[in-house]
Parts: sequence; C-alpha cells; structure tokens
Amino acid sequence: MKNAAAVWDDVCAIREQSPVVHNITNFVVMTPTANALLALGASPVMSHAIEEVEEMVGIANALVLNIGTLSTPWIAAMHCAAQAASRRGIPIVLDPVGAGATKLRTETALDLLQAVPITVVRGNASEILALGGAAAGARGVDSQHGSDSALEAARSLAARHGCVVSISGATDYIVRGERLAKVASGHLMMTRVTGMGCSASALTGAFLAVNDDPLAAAAHAMAVMGVAGEIAEKESHGPGGLQVEFLNRLYRLRRHNLISRLRMEWA
Amino acid sequence: MKNAAAVWDDVCAIREQSPVVHNITNFVVMTPTANALLALGASPVMSHAIEEVEEMVGIANALVLNIGTLSTPWIAAMHCAAQAASRRGIPIVLDPVGAGATKLRTETALDLLQAVPITVVRGNASEILALGGAAAGARGVDSQHGSDSALEAARSLAARHGCVVSISGATDYIVRGERLAKVASGHLMMTRVTGMGCSASALTGAFLAVNDDPLAAAAHAMAVMGVAGEIAEKESHGPGGLQVEFLNRLYRLRRHNLISRLRMEWA
Amino acid sequence: MKNAAAVWDDVCAIREQSPVVHNITNFVVMTPTANALLALGASPVMSHAIEEVEEMVGIANALVLNIGTLSTPWIAAMHCAAQAASRRGIPIVLDPVGAGATKLRTETALDLLQAVPITVVRGNASEILALGGAAAGARGVDSQHGSDSALEAARSLAARHGCVVSISGATDYIVRGERLAKVASGHLMMTRVTGMGCSASALTGAFLAVNDDPLAAAAHAMAVMGVAGEIAEKESHGPGGLQVEFLNRLYRLRRHNLISRLRMEWA
Repeated sequence: MKNAAAVWDDVCAIREQSPVVHNITNFVVMTPTANALLALGASPVMSHAIEEVEEMVGIANALVLNIGTLSTPWIAAMHCAAQAASRRGIPIVLDPVGAGATKLRTETALDLLQAVPITVVRGNASEILALGGAAAGARGVDSQHGSDSALEAARSLAARHGCVVSISGATDYIVRGERLAKVASGHLMMTRVTGMGCSASALTGAFLAVNDDPLAAAAHAMAVMGVAGEIAEKESHGPGGLQVEFLNRLYRLRRHNLISRLRMEWA
Repeated sequence: MKNAAAVWDDVCAIREQSPVVHNITNFVVMTPTANALLALGASPVMSHAIEEVEEMVGIANALVLNIGTLSTPWIAAMHCAAQAASRRGIPIVLDPVGAGATKLRTETALDLLQAVPITVVRGNASEILALGGAAAGARGVDSQHGSDSALEAARSLAARHGCVVSISGATDYIVRGERLAKVASGHLMMTRVTGMGCSASALTGAFLAVNDDPLAAAAHAMAVMGVAGEIAEKESHGPGGLQVEFLNRLYRLRRHNLISRLRMEWA
Repeated sequence: MKNAAAVWDDVCAIREQSPVVHNITNFVVMTPTANALLALGASPVMSHAIEEVEEMVGIANALVLNIGTLSTPWIAAMHCAAQAASRRGIPIVLDPVGAGATKLRTETALDLLQAVPITVVRGNASEILALGGAAAGARGVDSQHGSDSALEAARSLAARHGCVVSISGATDYIVRGERLAKVASGHLMMTRVTGMGCSASALTGAFLAVNDDPLAAAAHAMAVMGVAGEIAEKESHGPGGLQVEFLNRLYRLRRHNLISRLRMEWA
C-alpha cells in the first residue's frame, strides 16, 4: 500500500512534467520504447549522431544508453552523450544488452561504467553476471539464468561503480549497498515480446527524472512494467495483443491497479 | 462535402495506382510509416545508401526526407536523392523532425530547402517556427506550441522557398501564398503514438504522387490522418490500440467516413 | 495430414529448443521479425557490427541475411558473418529484398551467393527473377509478378548455387532440383503489413535450425506463415489487427490449426 502510493506519486509526476528522455538505443526497440515512454506520459527523444548528442542531452532530463545493435560510431556517441549528461547532472541508465555474448558488448558496457557515473544499470541476469565478474555463459540476449543468481554480481557491480543495479526476471531485484527491492509483478509472456527489457530501461530513465532517489526510481519503473504487463497479459491472447495492451495500460494506469496488483517489497 | 469528395478521389487514386514512395526516414518510425503507406494502398520503399538512392528514386513517384535520427552519411544521401527527384520532377516532402532542437537538424533542414525545390515541408509548430526564422524554443521533437502560432513562420517559409508548408497540431494548417486549409479532424491521443507526424509526412508523399496540386495533396493527407486517427481513437482503449486501429482504418476508409467526420475548410 | 504432422514436429522442436537465430536485417523489419521469432518460440539476436558478428554467429543456430536498407558496412558484416556461419556449418538464409530494383542490391545478393553456401534464398517473384537471370522489371520491393512466373528462375538459381529457393506469393513455391513444395495457405492482406516476407525469412532460419532437410524446413516455414496469417486475417479488421493476431497465432499455434488449414503439396 505504501509502495503503491510511492509508485503512484512518480507516475503522476511523469504525467505532469513529461520529462524528456534521450535514448541512444538499439534499432530493434526504438519504436516500442518510444511508444512506452509516450504512453506513460514522458517525452522520448532518439538521437545518436556525435554532432548533436551533446546538444540533445542539453534539453533532456535523463539519458538512456542501450548497447543492442552496437557499432563503433554509436559507442563514441554514447561516451560523448554520457559525459554531457554527467556534466549537467542528469541521471544515466545503462542497458547492457547482450553483455557476455560478445566482447564488444561486454567491453563497451564496462568502459561506459568506468568513464562516467552511471546511475542505474538495468539488465537481465546473464548481462549482470557478465559485468559483475561472475561466470557468464551468456546465450544471446535473453537470459538463461534466474534473476536471483545474479544478485551477488549485482551487489558487487553496484559497490564498484556506486550505481543502482536493476535485474529483470520472474522476480526483479533492484539493489544498491544493503538496500534491496523485489518486484514480483509481471508475466512470463512479456519475454515473448521484443523490447520489454529495453522499455524497462527507458521507463527507468523517466522515473529517475522525477524521483531523486535512484534506487526507488529504478524499483518503481519495474513495478509499473510488472503491473502494466500483468494486466495486459490478462486482456490479450498472445504476445501481439500483449504489446498493444501494455501500451494501453501504461496510458490508463490508475492508482487502484497498483494497489491491487503490485507485489513489491523492500528487504 | 466537396472537400470530402476531393479527398476521396485521391484515396481512390492511391489505391488504384499504388504509388511508390521512397522514404529516407528515421529509425524510430520506419515500421509504422511503412505500415501506414501499405494500409492506405501505397507502396513504400526505404533506402538510404548513397550508392543506390539515385537509382531507387528512379522507380519512385515521390520522395520523403525525414531528419529524425540524422547522421552525416544520411544527410549526403538525402541531398543525392533530392537532386535525383528534382531532375525527375517527382515531388519531395521534407519532415524537419527536431529542427530547433539541435543545430545539426535545423541546418540540415535549411540546407535541403536551399539546395532543392522541396514540394511540401510538414512539421509541428516548433519545427516550422525554427525554420521560419521566429524564436523557436524547441523542446525535443514534440511541439510545445499551438499550430496557429507557427502560421506566420509557415507563410514566410512557403514564400521564401516556393513550397507548401503543412503544420500539424490540434488544428492542422496547410499554407502557400494566400491559400490556407485548416483540418480540425484528429484526436489528442495521436500525440501519444510515435511516428504519427512522420506517417503524415509519408502519406503526404503518397497524395502528392496522385494529385498535381501540392497544396490540396498536403491538405488531403492531413484530412485522412485526422479522420482515420479520430475513428481509431473511438475504437481503442489507449495508444496501443490506436496505432492498430489507425492502420485498420486507413485500409478500410470509406467515402462516408470522410463525409461524416472531415472537419476541413479552405480560407 | 502427413504434411501437417511434419510441420507440427518442427514447430514443437522450435518451442523446445528455442534456437538462436542471428539476423542481419533491415531497419524496417527488425521489430516485427524479432517479435515473430519470439512468438514462435525461437530466440532472435540482431547484430551487425563487423567487430562482433563472427562471435555472435558462434552462439547462433542459424544466420539470416536480409539486404533491405543496405549500406556498405553492413555488406562487409554480412560476408564476415556468412563466412563464420559456413565454417560452423550452421544454415544461412538470404532474403534479397529489392534485388532487381537497384544494382547495389542485385550485386550484393549475387556476391553473397558466390561467396558462401547459402542454404535457402527466400524472396518474392521479382527478386528471384532478378537473381535467376530472367528479365526482372522490378518495381520497388513488392512483387508485381505472380510467384509461378519465377519458378524457372528459381530452379536455375537453385541449381547454380546448390541452394533451396523459396518464392512467396499467393502460392508459395519452394524448390530444389526436382523437388517442389507448393503452399497455398495465407491471405492477400498479409501484403499490406510490412515485414511479412522478412518474417518468413527469419522463421525459415528457425526451421532450418531444427530440421536437417533444408527444403522441408523452408516449406514448413512458409506453411506456418500461411496458416498463422490466414487465421489472423479472419480474426482482424485490417492490417493493423492482422499483425497483432499473426503474433498471437504464432504463439498459440496448435496441431489442429495446421490439420484444418494447411494447403500444401509436394510435387
């Protein structure tokens, strides 16, 4: 009840303030993540040219870096944008899509973590294990690991870089230091729609823009993902319908949805 | 009634002729704009490599340039394609996404307007203000300005470049010289779906391909966007459903939909 | 009945094994093809950077090359990935989107066919005619030719390169040597949704990963496309709904759907 109220406050703030979330993200999820941000009430911007990312960061309230479909010019743009975001003091989300699957991705994610103060790393268990130093064994970009298996890697990553780490899975774990939130809302069918994890990262950017506590913001983003996805699954007949209803539900999310559906606890 | 009949004539012509619309557009909207063109009955082509754009323009009936997610090689390809389109005499639409937000975008749009005869510039009020020389104050790629606020900038831009200017908003204004069309059909929820403005630009290309009067073609495109979007909103429960029903409605648009829904006037 | 059982076996194998399908594909269809693979039960990976494609192929069970929205760096990455796939012995699908429309596309497709052993070429009649040496007369990326008109070109292409050729159309023809499968399931409205052909190529990759007979695998992919698309059309009111229901149906496809709907024969 208290958790639902806190999540709801952030949802209302996003709808009122319509924060600009600048995404440098992968080609596969640009459309669905822009739609998720718009449906929630935020204002997405997508821009990756090194000539303009600094200027675009200048009008943004959060920056989201997503390394799926990475290439060299995009890495340079991510560093440039992240430096600008750091100077302006706006929050930065890193989604290390496919870290562990290729050296390029693992190293790009680790380099970004070294170079700039990332506010939240949001990934699946394989990706967090790859970055947290444990044996990864990543298989593509979908995780074969339960999210709890990455909890120690997440704590280690969070301590090393002073960031929040948000692991998505059947239960989402959001950690920094001794604080830990667990979000059990959601539905397995969400893994059969592309861009759900990336949308979680994009929404995390929106929540960070309105909530000064990065751990709470990251957890609230997962809470909204889970509740909207869970209701959407009930209103649909497969992953095609789920993605449609997910956007409808983000747009129409009400306080009572959170009160009745949110399974979230702080440990 | 007369307006509805004129719009309907163009819709029928698009369905019969299936004009090839060559898009050099942004990554976020490629899928939804291709789908919008297909649903209406046009034939989209997407191609951006400088090695092939001239050849692709050679089989196209209209060219649409959209500067969202711009980068240097794409700018060169846009110029190359626009020169080829100009030589062939096929219409060119420019969608100056995010003009005013970054120098790269503003300058790219202005350079294209200088370099080639653009047939129609279609943007939101912020973008038109940025190009028309007025104080822009753009905030990302979504407009914070009412569309009427950009009317003078649009007239100035139209006069300077001999083009039609189409401003989308709660009311759309389509201008050239003394002629002005206003389209009030549509629904606010369309702003919560990514790519609706870009789809308007793409459809403008399809209408230009079948109607020799660029001002009428640009206005008819906005009329169809507005009517299809307005009906789609009534048949859906949020922006997820709206994008689905919008495509359904473009495909199933009937003359009586235009007669009953179109709020369009010439001034 | 026997055909339906064979298709069903492959569907079950994909759901059980969740093969990783590495796609180097075009920007327009990345989201819908990833969603089609996920809905069927496969595991899509999208990666195009030359620095990582070889490594990504190393964890893949099939490689799909799609030349829509081609550019020079992507061509190099396709060759690199195809060489790696060939060394590993995993199947390769080539979708020659727009071959015949521009030299860049025709030559890129022919170069790939020369350079590496392509397992299946999947295209529409215009594209197969362009590659098979006949007079093409391509008009954009949608075919103006009936699929049967490309049958001789397909046989010639198959013989020259030792590959299977899969032609999509009102009737799909899947050929190699003397063997020929015809799939008549499907619906014309599928041509009004972008990425349906590209999804067919992506699903062909998934079927190749679980079935050692490339001709059967390619035919089974078209069978599932056709049956899922045909049912989806009945459950929708236009191309917007069709794309949603198509994903729902891939996810919920049952044996009896194939038994009652599949119109497929071997000649």
